[in-house]
Amino acid sequence: MIKKLIIATANKHKLSEIEFILKDSVKEISPMPADMEIEENGKTFMENSLIKAKAVYEKIKIPSLADDSGLCINALGGKPGLFSARYGGENLSYKEKMQMILEELKDKKDRTAYFITSAVCMLNEKYYIALEGKVDGKIIESPRGFEGFGYDPIFMPEGFNMTYAEMKAEEKNLISHRFIAMSKMKKILSCIYEH
Amino acid sequence: MIKKLIIATANKHKLSEIEFILKDSVKEISPMPADMEIEENGKTFMENSLIKAKAVYEKIKIPSLADDSGLCINALGGKPGLFSARYGGENLSYKEKMQMILEELKDKKDRTAYFITSAVCMLNEKYYIALEGKVDGKIIESPRGFEGFGYDPIFMPEGFNMTYAEMKAEEKNLISHRFIAMSKMKKILSCIYEH
Repeated sequence: MIKKLIIATANKHKLSEIEFILKDSVKEISPMPADMEIEENGKTFMENSLIKAKAVYEKIKIPSLADDSGLCINALGGKPGLFSARYGGENLSYKEKMQMILEELKDKKDRTAYFITSAVCMLNEKYYIALEGKVDGKIIESPRGFEGFGYDPIFMPEGFNMTYAEMKAEEKNLISHRFIAMSKMKKILSCIYEH
Repeated sequence: MIKKLIIATANKHKLSEIEFILKDSVKEISPMPADMEIEENGKTFMENSLIKAKAVYEKIKIPSLADDSGLCINALGGKPGLFSARYGGENLSYKEKMQMILEELKDKKDRTAYFITSAVCMLNEKYYIALEGKVDGKIIESPRGFEGFGYDPIFMPEGFNMTYAEMKAEEKNLISHRFIAMSKMKKILSCIYEH
Protein backbone atom coordinates (compact mmCIF):
# COMPACT_ATOMS: atom_id res chain seq x y z
CA MET A 1 0.00 0.00 0.00
CA ILE A 2 1.35 3.41 -0.98
CA LYS A 3 0.96 5.94 1.77
CA LYS A 4 0.64 9.24 0.02
CA LEU A 5 0.42 10.38 -3.57
CA ILE A 6 -0.04 13.90 -4.89
CA ILE A 7 -1.95 14.09 -8.15
CA ALA A 8 -0.46 16.73 -10.42
CA THR A 9 -3.69 18.08 -11.82
CA ALA A 10 -6.04 20.98 -11.22
CA ASN A 11 -8.82 19.18 -13.12
CA LYS A 12 -11.39 17.85 -10.63
CA HIS A 13 -12.82 15.34 -13.11
CA LYS A 14 -9.40 13.80 -13.67
CA LEU A 15 -8.72 13.77 -9.97
CA SER A 16 -11.95 11.96 -9.18
CA GLU A 17 -11.34 9.36 -11.91
CA ILE A 18 -7.82 8.74 -10.66
CA GLU A 19 -9.03 8.49 -7.07
CA PHE A 20 -11.68 6.00 -8.13
CA ILE A 21 -9.14 3.81 -9.91
CA LEU A 22 -6.38 3.96 -7.30
CA LYS A 23 -8.45 4.01 -4.13
CA ASP A 24 -7.57 0.46 -3.03
CA SER A 25 -3.84 0.96 -3.53
CA VAL A 26 -3.10 4.37 -2.06
CA LYS A 27 -3.96 5.45 1.49
CA GLU A 28 -4.07 9.15 0.86
CA ILE A 29 -4.52 10.87 -2.49
CA SER A 30 -4.32 14.66 -2.60
CA PRO A 31 -4.49 17.17 -5.42
CA MET A 32 -1.61 19.54 -6.03
CA PRO A 33 -1.81 22.96 -4.33
CA ALA A 34 -4.61 24.99 -5.91
CA ASP A 35 -2.35 27.97 -6.54
CA MET A 36 0.28 25.96 -8.41
CA GLU A 37 0.55 26.69 -12.11
CA ILE A 38 2.59 24.48 -14.40
CA GLU A 39 3.36 25.37 -17.98
CA GLU A 40 2.67 22.30 -20.09
CA ASN A 41 5.04 23.05 -22.93
CA GLY A 42 6.07 19.49 -23.78
CA LYS A 43 5.97 18.21 -27.34
CA THR A 44 4.31 14.92 -26.41
CA PHE A 45 1.79 13.68 -23.84
CA MET A 46 4.68 11.92 -22.14
CA GLU A 47 6.77 15.08 -21.90
CA ASN A 48 3.84 16.98 -20.42
CA SER A 49 3.08 14.40 -17.79
CA LEU A 50 6.76 14.25 -16.88
CA ILE A 51 6.93 18.05 -16.58
CA LYS A 52 3.89 18.04 -14.27
CA ALA A 53 4.96 15.13 -12.06
CA LYS A 54 8.42 16.65 -11.70
CA ALA A 55 7.18 20.13 -10.85
CA VAL A 56 4.91 18.81 -8.14
CA TYR A 57 7.53 16.47 -6.70
CA GLU A 58 10.08 19.26 -6.58
CA LYS A 59 7.69 21.48 -4.68
CA ILE A 60 6.20 18.98 -2.24
CA LYS A 61 8.76 16.15 -2.04
CA ILE A 62 6.07 13.48 -1.90
CA PRO A 63 5.60 10.92 -4.70
CA SER A 64 3.55 12.51 -7.43
CA LEU A 65 1.45 11.22 -10.28
CA ALA A 66 0.65 13.18 -13.42
CA ASP A 67 -1.69 12.39 -16.23
CA ASP A 68 -1.67 14.04 -19.63
CA SER A 69 -4.51 12.93 -21.82
CA GLY A 70 -6.11 13.79 -25.10
CA LEU A 71 -8.40 12.79 -27.91
CA CYS A 72 -6.68 12.12 -31.23
CA ILE A 73 -8.83 12.04 -34.37
CA ASN A 74 -7.20 10.33 -37.31
CA ALA A 75 -8.93 12.30 -40.09
CA LEU A 76 -7.76 15.52 -38.40
CA GLY A 77 -4.14 14.38 -38.30
CA GLY A 78 -4.34 13.53 -34.62
CA LYS A 79 -6.04 16.74 -33.49
CA PRO A 80 -7.10 18.00 -31.00
CA GLY A 81 -4.40 15.76 -29.44
CA LEU A 82 -2.00 17.61 -27.19
CA PHE A 83 -4.26 20.64 -27.40
CA SER A 84 -7.47 18.85 -26.39
CA ALA A 85 -8.15 21.23 -23.52
CA ARG A 86 -7.21 24.32 -25.51
CA TYR A 87 -8.70 23.41 -28.90
CA GLY A 88 -10.31 26.41 -30.55
CA GLY A 89 -9.13 28.64 -27.72
CA GLU A 90 -9.27 28.47 -23.95
CA ASN A 91 -12.60 30.25 -23.76
CA LEU A 92 -14.51 27.78 -25.89
CA SER A 93 -16.72 25.42 -23.87
CA TYR A 94 -16.47 21.70 -24.56
CA LYS A 95 -19.88 21.91 -26.18
CA GLU A 96 -18.47 24.46 -28.62
CA LYS A 97 -15.25 22.49 -29.10
CA MET A 98 -17.31 19.40 -29.95
CA GLN A 99 -19.44 21.34 -32.41
CA MET A 100 -16.27 22.59 -34.08
CA ILE A 101 -14.90 19.06 -34.36
CA LEU A 102 -18.16 17.66 -35.74
CA GLU A 103 -18.12 20.46 -38.32
CA GLU A 104 -14.51 19.63 -39.25
CA LEU A 105 -15.45 15.96 -39.64
CA LYS A 106 -18.60 16.63 -41.69
CA ASP A 107 -17.20 15.43 -45.01
CA LYS A 108 -14.77 12.85 -43.67
CA LYS A 109 -15.41 9.14 -44.04
CA ASP A 110 -12.82 8.15 -41.46
CA ARG A 111 -14.22 8.87 -38.01
CA THR A 112 -11.77 6.71 -36.08
CA ALA A 113 -10.13 8.26 -33.06
CA TYR A 114 -8.43 7.30 -29.86
CA PHE A 115 -8.20 8.60 -26.35
CA ILE A 116 -4.80 8.43 -24.76
CA THR A 117 -3.43 8.94 -21.26
CA SER A 118 0.24 9.30 -20.54
CA ALA A 119 0.96 8.80 -16.86
CA VAL A 120 4.16 9.50 -14.99
CA CYS A 121 4.71 8.61 -11.38
CA MET A 122 7.73 10.33 -9.85
CA LEU A 123 8.87 8.48 -6.75
CA ASN A 124 11.80 10.77 -6.12
CA GLU A 125 13.79 13.31 -8.13
CA LYS A 126 15.50 10.61 -10.14
CA TYR A 127 13.13 7.70 -10.17
CA TYR A 128 10.04 7.54 -12.27
CA ILE A 129 7.74 5.31 -14.24
CA ALA A 130 6.22 6.47 -17.49
CA LEU A 131 3.54 4.62 -19.38
CA GLU A 132 0.47 5.03 -21.54
CA GLY A 133 -3.09 3.79 -21.81
CA LYS A 134 -4.98 4.00 -25.11
CA VAL A 135 -8.53 3.26 -26.17
CA ASP A 136 -9.55 3.11 -29.83
CA GLY A 137 -12.98 4.23 -30.91
CA LYS A 138 -14.84 6.62 -33.18
CA ILE A 139 -16.42 10.06 -33.21
CA ILE A 140 -20.19 9.81 -33.51
CA GLU A 141 -22.42 12.24 -35.45
CA SER A 142 -23.74 14.24 -32.49
CA PRO A 143 -23.08 14.34 -28.73
CA ARG A 144 -24.76 11.70 -26.53
CA GLY A 145 -24.81 11.36 -22.75
CA PHE A 146 -24.15 13.62 -19.80
CA GLU A 147 -21.66 11.70 -17.66
CA GLY A 148 -17.88 12.10 -17.71
CA PHE A 149 -16.31 15.32 -19.00
CA GLY A 150 -14.55 16.92 -21.94
CA TYR A 151 -15.09 15.13 -25.26
CA ASP A 152 -16.79 12.11 -23.68
CA PRO A 153 -20.19 12.76 -25.40
CA ILE A 154 -18.77 12.31 -28.93
CA PHE A 155 -16.38 9.38 -28.30
CA MET A 156 -17.65 5.82 -28.61
CA PRO A 157 -15.03 3.24 -27.60
CA GLU A 158 -14.61 0.18 -29.81
CA GLY A 159 -16.84 -2.71 -28.80
CA PHE A 160 -19.45 -0.50 -27.17
CA ASN A 161 -22.70 1.06 -28.32
CA MET A 162 -22.43 3.89 -25.82
CA THR A 163 -20.28 6.99 -25.69
CA TYR A 164 -18.04 7.55 -22.66
CA ALA A 165 -20.65 10.10 -21.54
CA GLU A 166 -23.44 7.50 -21.61
CA MET A 167 -21.51 5.25 -19.25
CA LYS A 168 -21.73 5.53 -15.50
CA ALA A 169 -18.47 6.49 -13.79
CA GLU A 170 -18.10 2.90 -12.56
CA GLU A 171 -18.35 1.65 -16.14
CA LYS A 172 -16.11 4.21 -17.80
CA ASN A 173 -13.52 3.82 -15.08
CA LEU A 174 -13.21 0.11 -15.83
CA ILE A 175 -12.45 0.47 -19.53
CA SER A 176 -11.11 3.97 -20.16
CA HIS A 177 -7.68 5.08 -21.41
CA ARG A 178 -7.10 6.55 -17.96
CA PHE A 179 -8.05 3.25 -16.33
CA ILE A 180 -5.63 1.33 -18.52
CA ALA A 181 -2.73 3.64 -17.68
CA MET A 182 -3.55 3.81 -13.97
CA SER A 183 -4.00 0.05 -13.62
CA LYS A 184 -0.54 -0.58 -15.00
CA MET A 185 0.80 2.08 -12.67
CA LYS A 186 -1.03 0.57 -9.71
CA LYS A 187 0.49 -2.82 -10.41
CA ILE A 188 4.01 -1.42 -10.56
CA LEU A 189 3.57 0.76 -7.49
CA SER A 190 2.23 -2.15 -5.43
CA CYS A 191 5.26 -4.16 -6.48
CA ILE A 192 7.72 -1.44 -5.57
CA TYR A 193 6.12 -0.74 -2.22
CA GLU A 194 5.39 -4.29 -1.17
CA HIS A 195 8.48 -6.26 -2.16
CA MET B 1 12.08 -13.99 -15.29
CA ILE B 2 12.54 -11.58 -18.20
CA LYS B 3 13.16 -13.41 -21.45
CA LYS B 4 15.26 -11.04 -23.49
CA LEU B 5 16.88 -7.67 -22.90
CA ILE B 6 19.06 -5.68 -25.27
CA ILE B 7 21.69 -3.57 -23.54
CA ALA B 8 22.08 -0.23 -25.28
CA THR B 9 25.84 0.07 -24.97
CA ALA B 10 28.89 -0.52 -27.10
CA ASN B 11 31.09 -0.56 -23.99
CA LYS B 12 32.13 -4.13 -23.20
CA HIS B 13 33.03 -3.32 -19.60
CA LYS B 14 29.57 -1.90 -18.93
CA LEU B 15 27.96 -4.83 -20.65
CA SER B 16 29.85 -7.34 -18.56
CA GLU B 17 29.00 -5.50 -15.31
CA ILE B 18 25.33 -5.33 -16.25
CA GLU B 19 25.31 -9.02 -17.23
CA PHE B 20 26.91 -9.90 -13.91
CA ILE B 21 24.28 -7.98 -11.95
CA LEU B 22 21.23 -9.09 -13.92
CA LYS B 23 22.20 -12.65 -14.74
CA ASP B 24 19.69 -14.31 -12.39
CA SER B 25 16.77 -12.22 -13.60
CA VAL B 26 17.11 -12.19 -17.37
CA LYS B 27 17.34 -15.28 -19.58
CA GLU B 28 19.12 -13.70 -22.49
CA ILE B 29 21.12 -10.47 -22.44
CA SER B 30 22.49 -9.17 -25.73
CA PRO B 31 24.42 -6.05 -26.65
CA MET B 32 23.02 -3.67 -29.22
CA PRO B 33 24.11 -4.22 -32.84
CA ALA B 34 27.80 -3.37 -33.19
CA ASP B 35 27.21 -1.04 -36.13
CA MET B 36 24.62 1.05 -34.33
CA GLU B 37 25.67 4.58 -33.45
CA ILE B 38 23.62 6.73 -31.12
CA GLU B 39 24.27 10.41 -30.62
CA GLU B 40 24.19 11.07 -26.89
CA ASN B 41 23.20 14.70 -26.99
CA GLY B 42 21.10 14.81 -23.82
CA LYS B 43 21.64 17.47 -21.19
CA THR B 44 21.49 15.03 -18.28
CA PHE B 45 22.48 11.43 -17.61
CA MET B 46 18.78 10.59 -17.57
CA GLU B 47 18.18 12.15 -20.98
CA ASN B 48 21.10 10.26 -22.45
CA SER B 49 20.01 6.90 -21.12
CA LEU B 50 16.49 7.55 -22.37
CA ILE B 51 17.82 8.47 -25.82
CA LYS B 52 19.84 5.25 -25.94
CA ALA B 53 17.12 2.92 -24.65
CA LYS B 54 14.61 4.44 -27.05
CA ALA B 55 16.88 4.23 -30.09
CA VAL B 56 17.60 0.58 -29.46
CA TYR B 57 13.97 -0.30 -28.74
CA GLU B 58 12.84 1.44 -31.91
CA LYS B 59 15.32 -0.52 -33.99
CA ILE B 60 14.95 -3.96 -32.43
CA LYS B 61 11.50 -3.92 -30.76
CA ILE B 62 12.74 -5.92 -27.80
CA PRO B 63 12.87 -4.44 -24.28
CA SER B 64 16.07 -2.44 -23.96
CA LEU B 65 18.15 -1.20 -21.08
CA ALA B 66 20.49 1.76 -21.25
CA ASP B 67 22.97 3.03 -18.74
CA ASP B 68 24.53 6.47 -18.75
CA SER B 69 27.16 6.91 -16.11
CA GLY B 70 29.80 9.33 -15.04
CA LEU B 71 32.17 10.55 -12.38
CA CYS B 72 31.27 13.93 -10.88
CA ILE B 73 33.95 15.76 -8.91
CA ASN B 74 32.63 18.46 -6.63
CA ALA B 75 35.70 20.74 -6.71
CA LEU B 76 35.53 20.70 -10.51
CA GLY B 77 31.88 21.74 -10.56
CA GLY B 78 30.70 18.22 -11.30
CA LYS B 79 33.20 17.51 -14.08
CA PRO B 80 33.95 15.29 -15.94
CA GLY B 81 30.27 14.38 -15.40
CA LEU B 82 28.32 13.94 -18.58
CA PHE B 83 31.57 14.09 -20.51
CA SER B 84 33.36 11.41 -18.51
CA ALA B 85 34.15 9.32 -21.59
CA ARG B 86 35.13 12.33 -23.68
CA TYR B 87 36.98 14.40 -21.08
CA GLY B 88 40.05 16.07 -22.57
CA GLY B 89 39.14 14.72 -26.00
CA GLU B 90 38.16 11.34 -27.39
CA ASN B 91 41.74 10.35 -28.11
CA LEU B 92 42.99 10.70 -24.56
CA SER B 93 43.42 7.38 -22.77
CA TYR B 94 41.89 6.99 -19.32
CA LYS B 95 45.40 7.07 -17.92
CA GLU B 96 45.85 10.51 -19.47
CA LYS B 97 42.38 11.66 -18.42
CA MET B 98 43.15 10.64 -14.83
CA GLN B 99 46.47 12.49 -14.91
CA MET B 100 44.66 15.57 -16.15
CA ILE B 101 42.10 15.34 -13.34
CA LEU B 102 44.76 14.81 -10.67
CA GLU B 103 46.54 17.87 -12.01
CA GLU B 104 43.32 19.92 -11.88
CA LEU B 105 42.75 18.79 -8.29
CA LYS B 106 46.34 19.51 -7.18
CA ASP B 107 45.54 22.58 -5.10
CA LYS B 108 42.02 21.64 -4.10
CA LYS B 109 41.15 20.61 -0.56
CA ASP B 110 37.80 19.14 -1.46
CA ARG B 111 38.36 15.78 -3.16
CA THR B 112 34.83 14.48 -2.76
CA ALA B 113 33.21 12.98 -5.82
CA TYR B 114 30.47 10.63 -6.78
CA PHE B 115 29.86 8.06 -9.46
CA ILE B 116 26.40 8.01 -10.90
CA THR B 117 24.44 5.68 -13.17
CA SER B 118 21.20 6.63 -14.77
CA ALA B 119 19.38 3.59 -16.08
CA VAL B 120 16.37 3.46 -18.34
CA CYS B 121 14.54 0.30 -19.25
CA MET B 122 12.19 0.70 -22.18
CA LEU B 123 9.60 -2.07 -22.19
CA ASN B 124 7.80 -0.74 -25.25
CA GLU B 125 7.62 2.56 -27.12
CA LYS B 126 5.57 4.18 -24.40
CA TYR B 127 6.45 2.39 -21.22
CA TYR B 128 9.67 2.90 -19.36
CA ILE B 129 11.31 3.03 -15.99
CA ALA B 130 13.99 5.58 -15.21
CA LEU B 131 16.12 5.58 -12.11
CA GLU B 132 19.55 6.34 -10.73
CA GLY B 133 22.22 4.78 -8.59
CA LYS B 134 24.85 6.93 -6.88
CA VAL B 135 27.95 6.20 -4.82
CA ASP B 136 29.75 8.91 -2.88
CA GLY B 137 33.49 8.79 -2.43
CA LYS B 138 36.69 10.70 -3.08
CA ILE B 139 39.47 11.10 -5.61
CA ILE B 140 42.73 9.75 -4.24
CA GLU B 141 46.20 11.22 -4.92
CA SER B 142 47.34 8.73 -7.53
CA PRO B 143 45.80 5.77 -9.38
CA ARG B 144 45.63 2.42 -7.58
CA GLY B 145 44.53 -0.98 -8.88
CA PHE B 146 44.04 -2.60 -12.24
CA GLU B 147 40.51 -4.00 -12.16
CA GLY B 148 37.38 -2.32 -13.51
CA PHE B 149 37.68 0.38 -16.16
CA GLY B 150 37.57 4.12 -16.78
CA TYR B 151 38.22 6.25 -13.71
CA ASP B 152 38.05 3.30 -11.30
CA PRO B 153 41.74 3.62 -10.20
CA ILE B 154 41.28 7.11 -8.71
CA PHE B 155 37.86 6.66 -7.09
CA MET B 156 37.57 5.37 -3.54
CA PRO B 157 33.98 4.79 -2.42
CA GLU B 158 32.97 5.98 1.04
CA GLY B 159 33.47 3.36 3.72
CA PHE B 160 36.22 1.52 1.82
CA ASN B 161 39.98 1.66 1.83
CA MET B 162 40.23 0.46 -1.74
CA THR B 163 39.58 2.11 -5.06
CA TYR B 164 37.03 0.57 -7.43
CA ALA B 165 40.04 -0.71 -9.40
CA GLU B 166 41.43 -2.54 -6.37
CA MET B 167 38.21 -4.48 -5.95
CA LYS B 168 37.49 -7.72 -7.70
CA ALA B 169 34.58 -7.61 -10.14
CA GLU B 170 32.47 -9.58 -7.64
CA GLU B 171 33.15 -6.95 -4.97
CA LYS B 172 32.66 -3.83 -7.09
CA ASN B 173 29.51 -5.26 -8.60
CA LEU B 174 27.94 -5.58 -5.16
CA ILE B 175 28.44 -1.97 -4.13
CA SER B 176 28.84 0.16 -7.25
CA HIS B 177 26.63 2.95 -8.60
CA ARG B 178 25.78 0.62 -11.50
CA PHE B 179 24.85 -2.15 -9.07
CA ILE B 180 22.54 0.17 -7.13
CA ALA B 181 20.73 1.29 -10.26
CA MET B 182 20.51 -2.21 -11.74
CA SER B 183 19.29 -3.81 -8.52
CA LYS B 184 16.38 -1.40 -8.32
CA MET B 185 15.65 -2.08 -11.98
CA LYS B 186 15.86 -5.83 -11.42
CA LYS B 187 13.33 -5.62 -8.60
CA ILE B 188 10.86 -3.65 -10.70
CA LEU B 189 11.31 -5.84 -13.76
CA SER B 190 10.74 -9.02 -11.76
CA CYS B 191 7.56 -7.48 -10.39
CA ILE B 192 6.26 -6.47 -13.79
CA TYR B 193 7.03 -9.80 -15.37
CA GLU B 194 5.97 -12.08 -12.55
CA HIS B 195 2.73 -10.58 -11.32
